[in-house]
Parts: sequence; structure tokens; C-alpha cells
Amino acid sequence: MNSDMLVRITRYYRALNRLRAIGLEKVFAHNLADAAGVSATIVRKDFSLLEIHGQKRGGYEITDLIERISRILGKGDPQNVIVVGCGRIGKALMHYSGFEPDGIRVVAGFDTDPMVYSDVSHPVPVYPMSRLEEMVEALGVNVGIITVPESAAADTAERLLEAGVRGILNFSPITLKPKPVQNGEAPAVIHNINIALELEQIFYQLQFPEKRS
Amino acid sequence: MNSDMLVRITRYYRALNRLRAIGLEKVFAHNLADAAGVSATIVRKDFSLLEIHGQKRGGYEITDLIERISRILGKGDPQNVIVVGCGRIGKALMHYSGFEPDGIRVVAGFDTDPMVYSDVSHPVPVYPMSRLEEMVEALGVNVGIITVPESAAADTAERLLEAGVRGILNFSPITLKPKPVQNGEAPAVIHNINIALELEQIFYQLQFPEKRS
Repeated sequence: MNSDMLVRITRYYRALNRLRAIGLEKVFAHNLADAAGVSATIVRKDFSLLEIHGQKRGGYEITDLIERISRILGKGDPQNVIVVGCGRIGKALMHYSGFEPDGIRVVAGFDTDPMVYSDVSHPVPVYPMSRLEEMVEALGVNVGIITVPESAAADTAERLLEAGVRGILNFSPITLKPKPVQNGEAPAVIHNINIALELEQIFYQLQFPEKRS
Repeated sequence: MNSDMLVRITRYYRALNRLRAIGLEKVFAHNLADAAGVSATIVRKDFSLLEIHGQKRGGYEITDLIERISRILGKGDPQNVIVVGCGRIGKALMHYSGFEPDGIRVVAGFDTDPMVYSDVSHPVPVYPMSRLEEMVEALGVNVGIITVPESAAADTAERLLEAGVRGILNFSPITLKPKPVQNGEAPAVIHNINIALELEQIFYQLQFPEKRS
């Protein structure tokens, strides 16, 4: 499945969990279309590609859909992540409630500042950076969020990957990219969220609407 | 220019400002390629499309490049934004230093909670939500960042657009999309940053590397 379809499937999955949480039992393609920002035709096409078929009277059982999609998305294992860099953005992510409906859990934070890691008011344990390698192994995490200052981002990514982390979500303005691999191993997965860049693009598109594509 | 190219140009622009800040005067295509995560060939192709030519001895003058790209990106006006919803993520964005090198400035925050808007320790003024329309007009901003809880996101976007805001960066897990317009006016520009969704995708791509595209 291509990455656009993956984004849509993940959105369907999120929407289904929310709909179930408010007591619904059945859902229609157009409900999921609204939630994912696509047309009902695309939802039906995606489901048909995944060999998910609706009922004769129309609609899908939410519980059944969640189970099937969760198998497709490989939702067996717990989705634990660590936050490296516990400044304002890192702290916000440690407290972020939006991960729960997706089964994602921040299990630890890391920081170089003793004022930060000796503070016990964090919602999850925060360790000194010197314990990164040890704790990555002990916790068995393989995904890390980077919220360190720009100047430390590249080094932090390298340390995470060497410690065994395979996936990185990078909030620093530096664009990180996975190194090519030779031995047939899958390369690391790195996603970059660049907040300033998103705003830049918005300003640009507002200024030159005719150049939008 | 298509949106991939826009992203690259914006990255070149950011990198150039940083290189100038550390005292460099000249830059080569491969420097910018590294900064933007592309190949030097792509940098040269982009520049040739924009009719930016290097010097005979190779390389480009940084000051000259910044000026040309800033004209292309329409960097005349101040890039002021407001933050709507001053919880942890909103506060982190009000304090975020990563906007400065791009000339982006958070000029105000808005919140419904009197405890939040009566607190004077914020780095920018925070107003009650009831003053949103008045302040959007007074400040002349046309871009807003939405960091309200999921349940309030859609209403907040609607209010912002009605108040005259034309661009939105949405951090809530709800996918917001611009309404189609009829009268020939350009539609609003909405970008969604969905942190949980990014993590979901990372977990998925790690689990099924063969399905990556």
C-alpha cells in the first residue's frame, strides 16, 4: 500500500475508535470519508483493495472493521515511544492526551539538564541523557521523538539509532534523513515535523494563490 | 512551482539565513543540498528554473541568494501569527525560538480559560476567546495556529476564517479542510500537523518495511 493510502487507513482507524468510544456500532463509508477528509468513493475503493466488504443493508460493523484494520496496521505490539529533549515541546508531548486513542504511550523522557531530570513532577520518568542507551534497551522501545535544540538534533538522532531505535519523529528544524544501508537491513524510518516550514508554506500559498498546486 | 519545490526553496532559504548568521559569504549547491535533504543536482535544477545562476568560479553569494529567494517567496510583509488555545502545545509555540530565523512572529494568544488569559507571564499578550474577532482585525493577522482540544477544533477554525484569517496551521487530531469557494476568491489555506498520525505511520513502516513506498 502506498503512503497516501496508509495515511487514510490510519485516519479511518482513528475515527473508528472514536466512533466506538461514543457508542456507535455501525459506520458508513461517508462517515469515514468525512473523518479522513476524502470522498466516500475513495473509502470504498480502499476497503475493496483491502478486501473489506460492507453488509448487504449497507454500512460496516465498527468492531469488525477495527479488528481487521488493526491487523492490517500490525497493532499487536504496544506502541511505546520516548521523548528526547524535555523542553517546552518535549514536555507538551509527555502530557499529550491525543496519543491515547491510538494506543501510543510515551514511556520515558531524556534530558541533559539536571534541573529537568531531577524534577519528579513529569508524567513519565525522565532520565539523564547519559542513560539513553541503557534505558532504550531496558524499555525495549524502538521509536523516539526528538525535541532537542536544533544544534543537538543530528547527534541525538545518531545516538538513538546506535542505541537500537529504528524510528524517529524529529521536531527540530534540521531535516534528518535515514542513512542508506548496505546489508539488506531495512533503513531507519525518520519523519520530520518542521513547524516553521509549515507556516512558511502557508504564508507563501496565501501570497501567491495562483502558484498553488 | 509545485509544492515539493516550494518545500525545497523554503528549506534553502532557511539554510541560507543560518549560514549567513554564522559568517559564511558563499555557498555551493551541495551545501544547500545537504541542508534540504536533496541532491546537488536538484538544487541546481531548482535554481535554473528560478533563473538563479552561480558564479563562474562556482558557488553563489549568500546575500544575493537570500534576496532573490525572499522575493520569490514574497517575504515583504511581516509574517505574524496568533496561537488559539494556550495549553501546553500552544504555550510551547508562544515560546518557540525556531520561528525567528524565518521572520515568523507569534503576536498573540487566545484562550477560553480566565486562569490562562489573566496570567501575565506569557511572552506575548493572551486574550480571552471572546475578543478573537476584534483582535484579529486590530492586529491585522491572517494566519492562526490551532492548538485547542480536538472537540473545539472545527468551531475554532470556522471562527478564525469568519474573523478574516486566511491560513490555518492545525495541531488538533481532527483533519480540517478548506471549504470550496464559489465567488472566484482563493480558498483558505489549511495545513494539518497530526502528531499521533505521524507516529502511527512510523510504527507501521517499521512493522512492514516491505510495504513502504
